[in-house]
Amino acid sequence: MKAIIVNPPAKGFELRDVQIQEDGIKIRILENGICGTDREIVNGQLSTAAAPSGYNFMALGHEAIGEVMEDGGNFRRGDIIMPINRRGCGKCLNCLIGRPDFCETGEFVEAGIKGMHGFMREYIRDSPEFLVSVPSDIRDIAIMAQPLSDLEKSLEEILSVQGRLYWKCRDGTYGCRHALVVGTGAIGILFALLLRSRGFMVTISNRRETTPRETRIFQEAGISFFNSSRGYPEPGTGNAFDLVVEASGSDASILPSLLSLLKNNAVLGLFGFLRNGVANLSSTTLQNMVYKSISVVGLINGQKPHFEAALRDLVQWKHMWPGVIESMITRRTIQEVEQNRNILLNKQPDEIKMKIIW
Amino acid sequence: MKAIIVNPPAKGFELRDVQIQEDGIKIRILENGICGTDREIVNGQLSTAAAPSGYNFMALGHEAIGEVMEDGGNFRRGDIIMPINRRGCGKCLNCLIGRPDFCETGEFVEAGIKGMHGFMREYIRDSPEFLVSVPSDIRDIAIMAQPLSDLEKSLEEILSVQGRLYWKCRDGTYGCRHALVVGTGAIGILFALLLRSRGFMVTISNRRETTPRETRIFQEAGISFFNSSRGYPEPGTGNAFDLVVEASGSDASILPSLLSLLKNNAVLGLFGFLRNGVANLSSTTLQNMVYKSISVVGLINGQKPHFEAALRDLVQWKHMWPGVIESMITRRTIQEVEQNRNILLNKQPDEIKMKIIW
Amino acid sequence: MKAIIVNPPAKGFELRDVQIQEDGIKIRILENGICGTDREIVNGQLSTAAAPSGYNFMALGHEAIGEVMEDGGNFRRGDIIMPINRRGCGKCLNCLIGRPDFCETGEFVEAGIKGMHGFMREYIRDSPEFLVSVPSDIRDIAIMAQPLSDLEKSLEEILSVQGRLYWKCRDGTYGCRHALVVGTGAIGILFALLLRSRGFMVTISNRRETTPRETRIFQEAGISFFNSSRGYPEPGTGNAFDLVVEASGSDASILPSLLSLLKNNAVLGLFGFLRNGVANLSSTTLQNMVYKSISVVGLINGQKPHFEAALRDLVQWKHMWPGVIESMITRRTIQEVEQNRNILLNKQPDEIKMKIIW
Amino acid sequence: MKAIIVNPPAKGFELRDVQIQEDGIKIRILENGICGTDREIVNGQLSTAAAPSGYNFMALGHEAIGEVMEDGGNFRRGDIIMPINRRGCGKCLNCLIGRPDFCETGEFVEAGIKGMHGFMREYIRDSPEFLVSVPSDIRDIAIMAQPLSDLEKSLEEILSVQGRLYWKCRDGTYGCRHALVVGTGAIGILFALLLRSRGFMVTISNRRETTPRETRIFQEAGISFFNSSRGYPEPGTGNAFDLVVEASGSDASILPSLLSLLKNNAVLGLFGFLRNGVANLSSTTLQNMVYKSISVVGLINGQKPHFEAALRDLVQWKHMWPGVIESMITRRTIQEVEQNRNILLNKQPDEIKMKIIW
Repeated sequence: MKAIIVNPPAKGFELRDVQIQEDGIKIRILENGICGTDREIVNGQLSTAAAPSGYNFMALGHEAIGEVMEDGGNFRRGDIIMPINRRGCGKCLNCLIGRPDFCETGEFVEAGIKGMHGFMREYIRDSPEFLVSVPSDIRDIAIMAQPLSDLEKSLEEILSVQGRLYWKCRDGTYGCRHALVVGTGAIGILFALLLRSRGFMVTISNRRETTPRETRIFQEAGISFFNSSRGYPEPGTGNAFDLVVEASGSDASILPSLLSLLKNNAVLGLFGFLRNGVANLSSTTLQNMVYKSISVVGLINGQKPHFEAALRDLVQWKHMWPGVIESMITRRTIQEVEQNRNILLNKQPDEIKMKIIW
Repeated sequence: MKAIIVNPPAKGFELRDVQIQEDGIKIRILENGICGTDREIVNGQLSTAAAPSGYNFMALGHEAIGEVMEDGGNFRRGDIIMPINRRGCGKCLNCLIGRPDFCETGEFVEAGIKGMHGFMREYIRDSPEFLVSVPSDIRDIAIMAQPLSDLEKSLEEILSVQGRLYWKCRDGTYGCRHALVVGTGAIGILFALLLRSRGFMVTISNRRETTPRETRIFQEAGISFFNSSRGYPEPGTGNAFDLVVEASGSDASILPSLLSLLKNNAVLGLFGFLRNGVANLSSTTLQNMVYKSISVVGLINGQKPHFEAALRDLVQWKHMWPGVIESMITRRTIQEVEQNRNILLNKQPDEIKMKIIW
Repeated sequence: MKAIIVNPPAKGFELRDVQIQEDGIKIRILENGICGTDREIVNGQLSTAAAPSGYNFMALGHEAIGEVMEDGGNFRRGDIIMPINRRGCGKCLNCLIGRPDFCETGEFVEAGIKGMHGFMREYIRDSPEFLVSVPSDIRDIAIMAQPLSDLEKSLEEILSVQGRLYWKCRDGTYGCRHALVVGTGAIGILFALLLRSRGFMVTISNRRETTPRETRIFQEAGISFFNSSRGYPEPGTGNAFDLVVEASGSDASILPSLLSLLKNNAVLGLFGFLRNGVANLSSTTLQNMVYKSISVVGLINGQKPHFEAALRDLVQWKHMWPGVIESMITRRTIQEVEQNRNILLNKQPDEIKMKIIW
Repeated sequence: MKAIIVNPPAKGFELRDVQIQEDGIKIRILENGICGTDREIVNGQLSTAAAPSGYNFMALGHEAIGEVMEDGGNFRRGDIIMPINRRGCGKCLNCLIGRPDFCETGEFVEAGIKGMHGFMREYIRDSPEFLVSVPSDIRDIAIMAQPLSDLEKSLEEILSVQGRLYWKCRDGTYGCRHALVVGTGAIGILFALLLRSRGFMVTISNRRETTPRETRIFQEAGISFFNSSRGYPEPGTGNAFDLVVEASGSDASILPSLLSLLKNNAVLGLFGFLRNGVANLSSTTLQNMVYKSISVVGLINGQKPHFEAALRDLVQWKHMWPGVIESMITRRTIQEVEQNRNILLNKQPDEIKMKIIW
């Protein structure tokens, strides 16, 4: 079958016929989503990327929508599904209870990233336990459920961490809590939407003005925008946040500013991989973390319950905020990728999320 | 009455007669504990220290054992009590539910530190709701309950934060989890004992060899010691920890090393106030926080439930690890302080915890 | 203004002009939902019903959709809202933190039921803090959000209670858990839908065969039906449940059968008010509750976070299960009620949920 | 070796030489505790009792203190240990995470009760993972740790269940919560002590006046006593409880009275096996469970973390409440049992807890 393959740590990718031995029910891939990790791999920048053992190549891709080709488990031929991308180590307790997002050994595999063939190919075989059902209402936007699953898990984790204190408001909601999401990529916008849908006040920031498309999205969903090109506001009650989510993956030097924006008992969630630079944290900054009971938490990977939640949320958002998710997605065919390799190598101007149609 | 008073931000202290207006039942102070914060205040180094409004002085001291002089609430004349040191702002939800350790406004007051007279004086008056009963079995070591209360709260918070994943072991205990406590002051040792008593494997570290007294304590309680004067071990499974507690208050530059010691899903608790320096966190260190789902949490202040837990633990430890807590305490009389002001100004050689007897 | 009023404990209702003093922003009522409690009040059967102090009548109704007539809080003229029906006692901690569903004093008030005028009238005035925004996408079915809010809270409580053990499945979801909902009224069906949307396997039961409308609903949402007219199945693994929700409000004698259906560690949620009869629990049944670690929990009242969750779910369900919620609602105008009082007094044949349009 | 053996469902016991094949490190049994379950087995009254497969007898006994005879795991020759009595099914998630107290399959085994040889014999062999260390300070009373472990788990479960609401008091403790423990056997008294040590107000009840020994215990620990021989008080705020624990194992007809004693949001914990009779719960009683958000929970079996907590608590209680635990224990030698079989068959007058010394 045709597949987009890589051979990390080598740069580049190929679109060619491959043979892959797998068990499970047969699934025809309909679409793949592209994210920054995919582009890092094809650009030879992800040091943890590794082909499955026994292969000298790896099919790329950890975001996919597919059509079930044969009955299996609770699935029937014709069902539209999304496969889960990270699989457990089979050893640690967290993997045994279905939560390889908290794998203790680090021996998990991840489709298209580490030790497991990805989903950018005509067909996969997979066990029904690793598939989730895609509601027909959102087939057009369902590819967003994979990145959103990571954020569902992240918010679940943040709320769990904040369970260390009473963090709800006087009306029992999160309506008094103000979140800042740093970065307006697909992850940043999805995180902002998720927080809005859970009742938070949300500000999103980037180091430039918004594009018209972003402006429409933020207006529709009631998200404020802050242009941080001249820095973040000076600390002070008026400009402080209960939650800051780093989703920009920019320079590490941003960290002290983000910490200074935090209110008492606030949390800083690190989702983006800060690519370069150094964060210089003064002793005063660190003392403030103590005085103010601040928590910082690294956020990664959603699992099956989070895929399910993501799909539920996408159905809701599609009709709560009509056009918002649709407007985030750029469609490309596999033929376009074949003809214009650059599409896969580099994020295109004004692209928020690209998907490839097989 | 006689009191040890300060007038922050001025340096120094006085032992003299003062008049303080207070409500509540009368309590004769028997002992005060001295901690680093007290010494910072008398040395003019704590910028947040502030006398109560309407006073040009503040009685020092947030650790005390007293004897109730008149019936009140559930207390009877002659009862031995310990007063709680931080009091709520009366506004935010966390203060309303008895948890000013998570005060949202920052307008809490703290005895002998900020906006409230401390306990280093012959008498105080206080409301019974802010007093906890001291079991007679541990009257000699009960002064430790105040610092320990901070750690009871800290461990409760750490375990709550780690509730984000399944963090217990295959036998339902914490026996497979390895904690490192950085610093062998009173806080470091108490934290190590607390973790031991909850079943953790515990290593404690300092940048020197142990004193004979420390050696005895660590042996009795089954705590390993690591001399970090030549740095911490290189990262690697064998040297990694599930929990690191910073309790040294040393230089901020220690932080990257501590982060590198953390296993997947581990937590770094910041309890000590890192005094100087800068922590330079590389983007790789920050990426690892994401990949490894690491959390960092600022830890401060215990409240009434933690004072109660601390007193229960001290009873247990006194008999589980005979002599350990007793050996940590240096007794000084108020006369000694009067004659040798240096005792209060500076930590004495080989002192772990000093208390003043009135 | 015109209002449907009652004067408990007297039977009957009137539709007439009344004067009610209230503060807050003005809201024009668009629709009211009718539930069993309303009918109990008009039939003089609810002993806890009581008019507001200072009034010799009470406007009925605790389910309403309204249109905001003047700006206030975060609301703007023209916004569609739903008011929350229970308001706190102002004394206990749970009411202070916005959770009068767990009022400790029992001194809460409840619109149209106890001590507070209800919403079956042309206008109300209310504080913005007690209003939630209705998405325009679901204006036709939003009246369901009030009863659903009670179930959102109930499921949240059930999952919290089951936090006493590890209750998720090997894939981290609830997909292996089997729930039985007893009763096919509006509450029963909504609870079944809620459990389905959270991934549970769901069986619903009644003591008769399904109506064609019910058949369509259960098929669409993947809910199994069991006719319990000849009793529940004998205990045994194949017929046992992890969760049973009593939503029929039938005779108390049903209870031993329901308890016998529970697996180890299962939970029985009591939502319906069992109207008559006696539950005879043998010592063997009670011993089984111990051996099997069974919990039983009384479930009542949703608050603001649950109204918000209910509205989110309704958006999702409308498009996941098209036509399902719509088919549950019977529309009646206020003129119809005026002309045919029986509509309000008694549930009509094949009615699942009735709403009145003003 | 000599062992006390039974052959359920047959009545009676023998003290004779047996051969038992086991793996693990060798342990010499020092003491066994006797509880109601043991006496039910020897009297042929426990229908779930069953010898291990392949044996036509079962060594009795699930409460033991032993001395390690050979190094193994973290244990050294001479260490005093207590073995855990319930072992997991090896299949369900709760057993895999060390919590067979919540076994889902029911296929756990239990020493001296079901499918596993008990500890009433000269020697056992066991795996170190099922042993907990006994502090030397409490060797005399440590046998109480097994029953207490069940209660540690029970209270942990109760507090987890009550996590469904905010159940702490305005000072962050449980000091405003009033618990009633029904029954003054070893379980009832230990539960009352546990609740006291966690800060609850505690009343204990029996259908007679207290013995002098009980009077001393209750006075020392600050426990109130209520003689329920003429019934429980009429419902009303003054007589209501936040928590009722059934620890009497008496007649099921007690249940409606206990439910009527519960405040809003209260919990009824069922620990005792109600032996006979029927609980007739009226529909009003069941409606009250809904209106008042009441929970009922079956409580059984502690695991390793609870054994550890029980041993910690016993150290504390020994010195907080001197003489209390000691006074609860009647010592008997194995020779006495040999000569007077009745000691094992029936609870002796004024016996609270009996232990057998080998």
